[in-house]
Amino acid sequence: MAENVIVLGIDPGSVVTGFGVVALENGRMRAVSSGITRVSSERPLSERLQHIHSEVIRQIEAHHPDMVAVEDLFYAKNVKSVLKLGHARGVILLAAAQSGLPVHEYAPRAVKQSVVGSGAASKDQVASMVSRLLGLEQGTLEADEADALAVAVCHIHRMSGAPVR
Amino acid sequence: MAENVIVLGIDPGSVVTGFGVVALENGRMRAVSSGITRVSSERPLSERLQHIHSEVIRQIEAHHPDMVAVEDLFYAKNVKSVLKLGHARGVILLAAAQSGLPVHEYAPRAVKQSVVGSGAASKDQVASMVSRLLGLEQGTLEADEADALAVAVCHIHRMSGAPVR
Repeated sequence: MAENVIVLGIDPGSVVTGFGVVALENGRMRAVSSGITRVSSERPLSERLQHIHSEVIRQIEAHHPDMVAVEDLFYAKNVKSVLKLGHARGVILLAAAQSGLPVHEYAPRAVKQSVVGSGAASKDQVASMVSRLLGLEQGTLEADEADALAVAVCHIHRMSGAPVR
Repeated sequence: MAENVIVLGIDPGSVVTGFGVVALENGRMRAVSSGITRVSSERPLSERLQHIHSEVIRQIEAHHPDMVAVEDLFYAKNVKSVLKLGHARGVILLAAAQSGLPVHEYAPRAVKQSVVGSGAASKDQVASMVSRLLGLEQGTLEADEADALAVAVCHIHRMSGAPVR
């Protein structure tokens, strides 16, 4: 894959959502920006969704990604959590569609497999490997931030057909 | 309750979403507008969510409701349906928040109880009672349209503290 691309990775949550922008330039990956946005679970749900939606739009306007990669959900969680996460994912997918960007979804297992080489990798292993792949200092990433970068890395791996270092 | 209000009732669905605008004027309820919007389940989810979001915004701009009443979900459904419905509800709550409107949520049982007088009422009983309460011809409402009008009627009943005819 010769082309250069920018991928916005998102780890959706109803309280904390992680963002990670990864660029692939001349066959090398680089972390452009990453972070988390938190909104108190005591705020009304509609307000929290507005916050998440605005933050996705802001990330897209700031970094001009070519596509969005979003972590899929565990279906095993309890129904109430799934419903809440569904609301958050809904406004994230909406923001991507409104910005005309294609969305790619990856199950947590697929992300771990792609980044660490094992679908059963721990959160720490994912954060450590993401830092290594992107040349970031070890131990500096928030968990949800690392997960968002990981789903972006996973998408770049999938696009390229092989791990990119 | 003396004030006149306009309530936009919404019955969310990932394929069919029902809308029903009910006005309370001088102590009497009136159906202002109602209908359904359908989007093929073969379209990408992000596109379907954009369609639902735009339609909610269009309803709000057309009818200037004072508040939005949304049907809550059955928690008993299978997790995959709950997740899909969660996405749809997410963009509906977002559209209401972006328009500065308060959102009130009612469980299907509460809506049936309020409109028919029994939480176990059938879909047909709800449609029939909604038609009667709003002076609409019997048998003309789509099921999701009737449910949307019913949740608006339920909210007006709750606001008034007593059934309004």
